[in-house]
Amino acid sequence: MEITQKTLAYLKSLTAETVSNAKSGHTGSALGASSIMLALFHDHLFFDPKDTKLINRDRLVMSAGHTSALYYSLLHLFGYDISIEDLKKFRQLGSKTPGHPEINATPGVEVSTGPLGQGVANAVGLAIAESMMEAKFNEKKFEMFNNYTYCYAGDGCLMEGVAVEACSLAGTLKLNKLILLYDNNEITIDGKRDLACSENTALKFEAMGWNVIEVKDGNDYYKCSSAIKKAKKSDKPTIIIFKTTIGIGTKCEGSEKSHAMPLSAEDLAEFKTSLGVEGSFYVPDDVYDFCKSALTKNYLESARYKKQYEAYAKAYPEKYLELAMHFKEPKINFNKILKSLNKTQVISGRDMGHEAINLISKDVPNFVGGTADVAPSTKAVLDDYDYYSPSNRLGKNIHFGIREHAMGAISNGIALYTNIFVFDSTFMGFSNYMTPAIRMSAMMHLPVLSIFTHDSINIGEDGPSHQPIEQISALRQIVGLNVFRPTNSAELVAGLKIFFETKTPTALILSKSKLENNKNVSLEDALKGGYIIYKTKEKPMIEIIATGSEIVLATQIAKKLESKSVGVKVTSMPCEKLFDAQEKKHKSSVLGGTKLRVVIEASNDTVWYKYLTSKDMLVNVTNYQTSGKGSEVYAHAGFDADLITKNILKKLKLN
Amino acid sequence: MEITQKTLAYLKSLTAETVSNAKSGHTGSALGASSIMLALFHDHLFFDPKDTKLINRDRLVMSAGHTSALYYSLLHLFGYDISIEDLKKFRQLGSKTPGHPEINATPGVEVSTGPLGQGVANAVGLAIAESMMEAKFNEKKFEMFNNYTYCYAGDGCLMEGVAVEACSLAGTLKLNKLILLYDNNEITIDGKRDLACSENTALKFEAMGWNVIEVKDGNDYYKCSSAIKKAKKSDKPTIIIFKTTIGIGTKCEGSEKSHAMPLSAEDLAEFKTSLGVEGSFYVPDDVYDFCKSALTKNYLESARYKKQYEAYAKAYPEKYLELAMHFKEPKINFNKILKSLNKTQVISGRDMGHEAINLISKDVPNFVGGTADVAPSTKAVLDDYDYYSPSNRLGKNIHFGIREHAMGAISNGIALYTNIFVFDSTFMGFSNYMTPAIRMSAMMHLPVLSIFTHDSINIGEDGPSHQPIEQISALRQIVGLNVFRPTNSAELVAGLKIFFETKTPTALILSKSKLENNKNVSLEDALKGGYIIYKTKEKPMIEIIATGSEIVLATQIAKKLESKSVGVKVTSMPCEKLFDAQEKKHKSSVLGGTKLRVVIEASNDTVWYKYLTSKDMLVNVTNYQTSGKGSEVYAHAGFDADLITKNILKKLKLN
Repeated sequence: MEITQKTLAYLKSLTAETVSNAKSGHTGSALGASSIMLALFHDHLFFDPKDTKLINRDRLVMSAGHTSALYYSLLHLFGYDISIEDLKKFRQLGSKTPGHPEINATPGVEVSTGPLGQGVANAVGLAIAESMMEAKFNEKKFEMFNNYTYCYAGDGCLMEGVAVEACSLAGTLKLNKLILLYDNNEITIDGKRDLACSENTALKFEAMGWNVIEVKDGNDYYKCSSAIKKAKKSDKPTIIIFKTTIGIGTKCEGSEKSHAMPLSAEDLAEFKTSLGVEGSFYVPDDVYDFCKSALTKNYLESARYKKQYEAYAKAYPEKYLELAMHFKEPKINFNKILKSLNKTQVISGRDMGHEAINLISKDVPNFVGGTADVAPSTKAVLDDYDYYSPSNRLGKNIHFGIREHAMGAISNGIALYTNIFVFDSTFMGFSNYMTPAIRMSAMMHLPVLSIFTHDSINIGEDGPSHQPIEQISALRQIVGLNVFRPTNSAELVAGLKIFFETKTPTALILSKSKLENNKNVSLEDALKGGYIIYKTKEKPMIEIIATGSEIVLATQIAKKLESKSVGVKVTSMPCEKLFDAQEKKHKSSVLGGTKLRVVIEASNDTVWYKYLTSKDMLVNVTNYQTSGKGSEVYAHAGFDADLITKNILKKLKLN
Repeated sequence: MEITQKTLAYLKSLTAETVSNAKSGHTGSALGASSIMLALFHDHLFFDPKDTKLINRDRLVMSAGHTSALYYSLLHLFGYDISIEDLKKFRQLGSKTPGHPEINATPGVEVSTGPLGQGVANAVGLAIAESMMEAKFNEKKFEMFNNYTYCYAGDGCLMEGVAVEACSLAGTLKLNKLILLYDNNEITIDGKRDLACSENTALKFEAMGWNVIEVKDGNDYYKCSSAIKKAKKSDKPTIIIFKTTIGIGTKCEGSEKSHAMPLSAEDLAEFKTSLGVEGSFYVPDDVYDFCKSALTKNYLESARYKKQYEAYAKAYPEKYLELAMHFKEPKINFNKILKSLNKTQVISGRDMGHEAINLISKDVPNFVGGTADVAPSTKAVLDDYDYYSPSNRLGKNIHFGIREHAMGAISNGIALYTNIFVFDSTFMGFSNYMTPAIRMSAMMHLPVLSIFTHDSINIGEDGPSHQPIEQISALRQIVGLNVFRPTNSAELVAGLKIFFETKTPTALILSKSKLENNKNVSLEDALKGGYIIYKTKEKPMIEIIATGSEIVLATQIAKKLESKSVGVKVTSMPCEKLFDAQEKKHKSSVLGGTKLRVVIEASNDTVWYKYLTSKDMLVNVTNYQTSGKGSEVYAHAGFDADLITKNILKKLKLN
């Protein structure tokens, strides 16, 4: 057998055996995509298994993450730290070869994928990042950045809105180093793709400004390889539509049955015989050698690149230093930023946010981002920088368009590139369009800062569809996401400090309404997630916990109670997750010792029950409100200082 | 002035004045779309303001809901119960004219819209429903259903993934009575549309199987009207691309500044002068008469239709009865269904769900739905019925494709048509792709049943991206959505009973794993949302609250404790919202009287703190888990009967 065909045969066998051995996983597309992916790895992909973080490596996103058995088999063949034993542990607890690719589990995996469509948007983000780095750092004879971003996607991925949103933006942005490998096997779980999707993909992508290449026989290694070669020369993003056969060579070839079906021992044996391969989990030396030939070429290029990197330091020392900053912890003087923010006494959350990100951007060159077409409203704009566009790759602000979900997933992609800090932004009411992407950023622990403004019912006139009441809860519940709802500069800066220092994905929930910026609050206090912001001289009988705009209200209530000689303390808790993580000593110094605890937040979040007993009081929003003036809607929903004061006194039988 | 132009002028004036008077709202597109919408209302739309629920009325969805001032002005001119006084109360608390259209606020409004893109998918759902009704009920000389669905959408709507997903499906399904009125003013909030979206919309829709009509002057009433006339004859869904001018005639014409800018008193006066109109909030009689002429035509048709409806009763009595069922409460023998489900002792949640919806569908002819390409997995299929397709409009199962968000919003549209009960379904892990649509179904109170299977970490091998832990919380927090996570048939049936009887949108969270179907549980118990499912003879010292699969675990723990002579009661709480709504008597008979309360749920939901004090115990999932065998992942996360038993005994110092 010719060596390419032989390698393909052993790759298929290894892939099918990996799934079959686990008795779990997806055989269909893993076999169907084998020619495409082998051609990519052998003939095109620039990678260095010994330096998986090489900054100019090509990026590969397996958007159809269920094709993982093929992916891991390729990583094994091409020198990554994945052994045959690892393949035998496919999908087992604690293995390097989980069901869907995970960046923290497997060397070589660039992006955690699984939920369909998002990988395509991640790839768009990676390509945006590459183009930014290229524009910023490339010099004559020093192509510091020129890598390609490949994205493997199936019929499912391309039906997902998040993928189409991202592709529309990619076409607009002319991301010519983005290559979408579309495994068009025309089969989905329910049966033929046409049952739910008869669209003309080629034409659709052409309409979105893409270069379209069609490969009628996507099972042919050489045709796959030559299409990829062509794609690399395009001045637009390219989709290669490979007509493939799902489960090729197996009993269920061409049928949806092959999608998630591990082959039985018998069927596997038959399949292997038809491929002409021998052994179990066996790869002949000449197949390894064939793969090594690609590796050798890549190792040479990797070595050359490293030399170039060193030479760059001498040729362009300033640029080199800036590039090096991407790999260092940013140095940000947060106290100085706080001082500057504290110059304004009464300010809205969104205005505070705007000022803060602009101050930070002076210290962090690798900080970029944008909004979903609401820049004038959320004010998440870096004023000193241009917008990123095909003619200006140096712009740091991105017009994501009215595409919240893609914005989230593209931000993840940018952040994945190489230590770029990213912000994205929309109204809090639409944060639910992007929670699937935020969940993935939390799972991957990416430095993405989501700036959500217009944070509650007091936005008023736009009505219930725009008044977020459940959205904050959906964010707070995301494991590994920090959520800050600040009421003053110190809290805002605390959220940003933790974000930049720990690179934990963070959501800032900012008000459209004015806040009283209490400049007596120290950064140290705010960094505890919860602290006493107001305390009467009288010994507190009542404690109020609140966040964001509701601190304004809580303070009013406290003053009213104070005037009746009732002692009160008000705790501001911008990040309850952070507060919970404090030492017991701090927590008990803040909470407790009173007769009544009241939580006030204009949301429907049940997290507050954590701090309440049945004897306490929760002032929240448990119904959709109506359209009306912000202050009226707020009061109508019960957020009224007189009313709450009255209810507190009643509860304590003090009225 | 010619009367059409005069009407247009007064419509524009009324619209601008409405926004200007409120000092809040959106002037830009409301003016830009006035020719399109006046042409639609006057020349095409079939409606009866005196019978806003007329079943064969044309449906209009204002997807770009911020264009509401124009919409309300038209409703006023065309005989709906919206007065000039109502227009003066635009965006005020409790008015009939809220910021964005809301079905419960305004007579004539078909769909609550605002979050961009969703309205387009709602319209696709309405068109699907119409085609189903047409196929089911039309007979020779009795066109009981033939209405059009119009959807007004802007540049923003069409960038949203949910809209593109829905349009792709609409093309596949050849929904020829769907007409998308695309107000292509080329301006979004950030500036020119091209900044973020340079795609060729015409070509994109052609690729998706649509009929495309372009109107170069969308400010020309006659050209708009004639395009709509053409669209009505298409055998495909039609998009009419109207090139319009945002804020036409005002100072900020053609600029993004006009989007959300109420005109100042001075600018309004100038604008009115340029239009040649008089008075304030004034409409001359001949303008009212012009609108009335369309009304008269519509009233005649409405009367004719009603006669036809009566005649249909005689000509096709059986079909008439079935049609009448759409407007009656369905009669479902839930006890019988429960009895049938109870025949199986050990069964997975998804299998129970499958059997239940099939039994119900025998009693409810107006029950349709489908999955996002996971029918074999979630088993949400009506076995006795075909799939809906262009060649079979009688099918009751829908291939939504891999488009969760659109599935949710399309389901809302179907449910909006005329008392159709809808189910949709995907994996619980992807429920977050569709929460924006579920939120709207909750706001509109629509009979949409979401069937989410593979409900927790014990799905195992697919790994954390597919293991839902936060998703249940995001659903439970949605105001007006019932969430049921049943552990047995009685609980499942209870959830369905409430769904069909109250038409409250409901999410069923079903396991892939096997449950022990306790047939001793009565429907009455389950209908309380929480009840004691297991109790030892010994007086309970410990109470365990659990849901779904965790009841299996809780019962194991109870038996272990029992064997150590420790009294226990286990409370199953499939719907905590429902339990909370019970009388105090029931609640105190279920909860309390023990030394330790333990809640067990394989989720990260903070709702359980509602029932816990700091002395109690919460066994939940606060971290992403890994890929592995379901039972191993479950145990690894702490869901192990021995471990939990040991911890309980330790807590009570009984070990």
